[in-house]
Amino acid sequence: MKALVYHGPGSKALEERPKPVLSAPDDAIVRIVKTTICGTDLHILKGDVPSCEPGRILGHEGVGVVETVGPACTLISPGDRVLISCISSCGKCDYCRKGMYSHCRSGGWVLGHTIDGTQAEFVRIPHADTSLYRLPAGIDEEAAVMLSDILPTGFECGVLNGKVRGPGQSVAIVGAGPIGLATLMTAQFYSPSQLIVIDVDDNRLAAAHGLGATATINSLNENAVARVKALTSDAGADTVVEAVGIPATFELCQDLVAPGGTIANIGVHGHKADLHLERLWAHNIAITTRLVDTETTAMLLKAVATGTLNPKPLITHRFSLDTILDAYDVFGRAAETKALKVVIAA
Amino acid sequence: MKALVYHGPGSKALEERPKPVLSAPDDAIVRIVKTTICGTDLHILKGDVPSCEPGRILGHEGVGVVETVGPACTLISPGDRVLISCISSCGKCDYCRKGMYSHCRSGGWVLGHTIDGTQAEFVRIPHADTSLYRLPAGIDEEAAVMLSDILPTGFECGVLNGKVRGPGQSVAIVGAGPIGLATLMTAQFYSPSQLIVIDVDDNRLAAAHGLGATATINSLNENAVARVKALTSDAGADTVVEAVGIPATFELCQDLVAPGGTIANIGVHGHKADLHLERLWAHNIAITTRLVDTETTAMLLKAVATGTLNPKPLITHRFSLDTILDAYDVFGRAAETKALKVVIAA
Amino acid sequence: MKALVYHGPGSKALEERPKPVLSAPDDAIVRIVKTTICGTDLHILKGDVPSCEPGRILGHEGVGVVETVGPACTLISPGDRVLISCISSCGKCDYCRKGMYSHCRSGGWVLGHTIDGTQAEFVRIPHADTSLYRLPAGIDEEAAVMLSDILPTGFECGVLNGKVRGPGQSVAIVGAGPIGLATLMTAQFYSPSQLIVIDVDDNRLAAAHGLGATATINSLNENAVARVKALTSDAGADTVVEAVGIPATFELCQDLVAPGGTIANIGVHGHKADLHLERLWAHNIAITTRLVDTETTAMLLKAVATGTLNPKPLITHRFSLDTILDAYDVFGRAAETKALKVVIAA
Amino acid sequence: MKALVYHGPGSKALEERPKPVLSAPDDAIVRIVKTTICGTDLHILKGDVPSCEPGRILGHEGVGVVETVGPACTLISPGDRVLISCISSCGKCDYCRKGMYSHCRSGGWVLGHTIDGTQAEFVRIPHADTSLYRLPAGIDEEAAVMLSDILPTGFECGVLNGKVRGPGQSVAIVGAGPIGLATLMTAQFYSPSQLIVIDVDDNRLAAAHGLGATATINSLNENAVARVKALTSDAGADTVVEAVGIPATFELCQDLVAPGGTIANIGVHGHKADLHLERLWAHNIAITTRLVDTETTAMLLKAVATGTLNPKPLITHRFSLDTILDAYDVFGRAAETKALKVVIAA
Repeated sequence: MKALVYHGPGSKALEERPKPVLSAPDDAIVRIVKTTICGTDLHILKGDVPSCEPGRILGHEGVGVVETVGPACTLISPGDRVLISCISSCGKCDYCRKGMYSHCRSGGWVLGHTIDGTQAEFVRIPHADTSLYRLPAGIDEEAAVMLSDILPTGFECGVLNGKVRGPGQSVAIVGAGPIGLATLMTAQFYSPSQLIVIDVDDNRLAAAHGLGATATINSLNENAVARVKALTSDAGADTVVEAVGIPATFELCQDLVAPGGTIANIGVHGHKADLHLERLWAHNIAITTRLVDTETTAMLLKAVATGTLNPKPLITHRFSLDTILDAYDVFGRAAETKALKVVIAA
Repeated sequence: MKALVYHGPGSKALEERPKPVLSAPDDAIVRIVKTTICGTDLHILKGDVPSCEPGRILGHEGVGVVETVGPACTLISPGDRVLISCISSCGKCDYCRKGMYSHCRSGGWVLGHTIDGTQAEFVRIPHADTSLYRLPAGIDEEAAVMLSDILPTGFECGVLNGKVRGPGQSVAIVGAGPIGLATLMTAQFYSPSQLIVIDVDDNRLAAAHGLGATATINSLNENAVARVKALTSDAGADTVVEAVGIPATFELCQDLVAPGGTIANIGVHGHKADLHLERLWAHNIAITTRLVDTETTAMLLKAVATGTLNPKPLITHRFSLDTILDAYDVFGRAAETKALKVVIAA
Repeated sequence: MKALVYHGPGSKALEERPKPVLSAPDDAIVRIVKTTICGTDLHILKGDVPSCEPGRILGHEGVGVVETVGPACTLISPGDRVLISCISSCGKCDYCRKGMYSHCRSGGWVLGHTIDGTQAEFVRIPHADTSLYRLPAGIDEEAAVMLSDILPTGFECGVLNGKVRGPGQSVAIVGAGPIGLATLMTAQFYSPSQLIVIDVDDNRLAAAHGLGATATINSLNENAVARVKALTSDAGADTVVEAVGIPATFELCQDLVAPGGTIANIGVHGHKADLHLERLWAHNIAITTRLVDTETTAMLLKAVATGTLNPKPLITHRFSLDTILDAYDVFGRAAETKALKVVIAA
Repeated sequence: MKALVYHGPGSKALEERPKPVLSAPDDAIVRIVKTTICGTDLHILKGDVPSCEPGRILGHEGVGVVETVGPACTLISPGDRVLISCISSCGKCDYCRKGMYSHCRSGGWVLGHTIDGTQAEFVRIPHADTSLYRLPAGIDEEAAVMLSDILPTGFECGVLNGKVRGPGQSVAIVGAGPIGLATLMTAQFYSPSQLIVIDVDDNRLAAAHGLGATATINSLNENAVARVKALTSDAGADTVVEAVGIPATFELCQDLVAPGGTIANIGVHGHKADLHLERLWAHNIAITTRLVDTETTAMLLKAVATGTLNPKPLITHRFSLDTILDAYDVFGRAAETKALKVVIAA
């Protein structure tokens, strides 16, 4: 089968690989129908994720059709049209029993990382019953593939951790990439009064505006702290979401948060940041971090099925698996190409 | 009346001052029976709290008897024996209505800070009905004075913010001063399986042992991280409480916390600290900060009244108001004098 | 001044009464601009509320302008345009300190009940700072008057108690009167997937449809239980709201609730009901009751100010204080007149 | 093997049955070491549980040693000393994924009910990885067998559902049988100020006294409502636990609960009860029901292992499997024999 393979920092190839086979009783083999590329795939290609070794098929997002299942699978059957979660969860270990699937003792983020992933014609999914989700009838496959990672990530790490809870609240999202926009979309489940999005890219801010931001701030052109204070009776935002992953934006969040508020970190950070406890110790805030657990995937699928959530506007480009190298090129030059999410049909 | 007055960095005096008078309809004048000294008073004397100006009577803790009340007081009456909360709360502003009394629009931490405090024969208490607590019959006054600040601080900022919730949990407390020990005491309300206390002072660790610590670690003599991991199946502690207030101890907390755990900061910090997001972004933790709200003071009084909580072992020395300068001396040299809390009878 | 006075079961009159005066330091006198009639006023007139004695001016809802305030008022001033909460709250007693204003030791539901109410030219409001809410600039007065009682009642007793929490959930509301419709409106803050409204009046069901119900059921014409099961994969509804107040509808709720779900009672009941514990003991449900606390009034005002909530469609008829007897007549014959809420301009 | 078999209402026998065999990939066969008898077994024998058919081996509690496991078991291995949960949980269905194992789509309470149970030499356990718990080293087997059902039942259905949360709270437990006493024991994890136990059997009340009750009431001899009011400043209890299962005791609970409080039902009811909504609609209470989920079993095992919980005092009699008919006799005449829990060594 064709697969996109990582060959060490800076190197990748679309090549022929053997079709995967079942290796445990709870495995399933899924034929990929749609997949996509994540910012994390770019991190791997830069060499920033040493736990991902050369020879690995990349990709942790996808929609497909189940081909075969192991004898322990009781919920998923061949022929099922399924969403592949970016997090594999055994459902049995202590972490899974408390809903913290990200830290599953025999799963977590393994796809396209420590085992072969979804940017291929087929993929082996461990713990299939608890890592695949049958698609509701009639659901759009492109919309669904947005639920493998970015929608649950924005929702769980940003909205739920950020305690977005209802009208009257103000939410500031720092970073208008796909994850920031997924946060913006899912924050609207709870009707906050203000949804302020901050970025340095006017194109992404325009996208944010179209997706429901009540205010957008280009922090290159104006003082984001002053503007957020002006919008919030000088208090700051009740919820501040970090969706970039660098020290500067995390430190900005500390200036934006209201007393009693929350900074919900989503960004994948490569460096430590300064925490201004000399100001914040008496500010009654919480700071949260989270690798997505995908515990809300079934709920998000319902939200798409009933029309409450429509993630398709996040998709800007479409490719086939044959042209996935072009997809990487376009996604890697997002500022120029205005790419948000690219979908690859396998 | 006699009062302990701050005269600028390094300077204080016990001197004669006019007795306070009612200035608002919800004020009360309280005759002090017992007061104490807080680490924050030492910070003020070092000049670290510029919002406290020279001429200020210090002290934000105390037990006394109400002398007079303004016409808007309906719950507190002359003759009531009362606990004075370190936080004054109007009960009416937006912050008070959500229980965040620390940020009261016309209160918060004002006593011995921006208005005259309790280290005197009399004190004026604003918002008396919601800032004083009638003592239950028979309650020990020395025990009660521990509830002005350190017990609610340890309980709210450490135990509640730290999500100490029941058996099976592990709790690590960094710092065995009065606040750390107050956290240790009140954590036991929820029966955690492990209560590990870390300090550099063997005397304080011995006190922790006597007050219920299941393990104590002198971090000068052994590797605190290795020991906590060994005690927690290599996971780290579910709750880590910072009760010191310097960068080194806050950074230690980041090495101690288990995936899915909480770092509850209590320490009053004068400097920023490093936050290791490059490790913690995927660790699913929360970090909380809080200036005590004293929203649990009534509950803690009940716990003392019914014998569930006994704060008296925190008291190591006793003085009269006439000898309060000696009390400051003893409290200021705690490592030598082995002082925890000193009580001053007025 | 003119006032609508209760004269015992079945008897009321619009008559001249002395203008109220301040009687406590935290009182305010408010000139009524708009008021309305509640189902509870009809209950009083039937003689069902013996704690309301003859001679009482009725009414616990209103918007007005503050005329005078007592010396303890610090937040509310003469000239302020205010919303009057149906619940008076001292902000100081144990119940108020935990947000349970409905049970305030010196307040609760007193207006138009144990003290004179709002169906008059002027009203005395006790605990004014914590029982009046300044109207945001530009807010519609008719919309605001819906927030005195029915909107917080539907939201707190139905939506919050009913744990309506997000997409994927199903909500069934039994009763499409003003309170049921207020529940329907505010449930949408949390984007549930299904909002099923059940009543016996097609006119009210049509209103529910217009206000966002995803399904409506006339339980005279079809089997409500069968239909709700059909709509919810045979599970029943996650949240069931009782908004009628008779045994039959409360018992219907027990047939509608899903395992793990909640029955949130809003109805004012005059009789006991059967609780089918022989079925429900293993059903893992919660049943809640609540007299509205109005702790969310400020949040709801923000929701109206920002356009998230528009209660005006609930208003079907308008009167002046001179014609309030006509308003009672129209409101009392709601099935015929199709009245939902009637607004009276004073 | 020997097994205690139900043969229809009023009829049971100790007889020879074939040893069970693995039937699904996630099954395990466990050799029973200790088992016990539950009140539910008596209900079955009375014919009150028609879903349990004649021919069934009874028993849903036990400790044993794993003999064999199916190929899908990855956590449990032959030779493991294990606690058997009364609830079988697949870990994969929608209910299991939200921690509601009692309603598992292919499990729940099946042992000794719809499949053969633990009152035998061997038992087949479905979903073994998520329905068995490895015993911590050194844990007492008799103590452990109390954790199959009654301790998690008292804790989850009584203490957690009843929102027992800390000092200052009052808890009233109606019924001092094994479940009521398990509630009493586990309520103490959260240090409530008052733990009042009500029963009609002085022997059981004496046991309650020995296990930590702060007050006991024989409701035959004194007015339970008056006494609870007297103990709670006339408010009633914050948490009321129903641990009997008849209308009279459930109705008593309604008279005992404080405004804002919770009635947590544990009792297995055979009949409907009156719910006094005409009083309770404005009382701001919650009523909960729950079939135990055993989601806290691992936590309770830790509590036993660390000495926080000691369930052994609940054991009053010991038998061997050969004399299990005597055990039923003693347990069935508890008022005379003063039996609480009987342990059967297999």
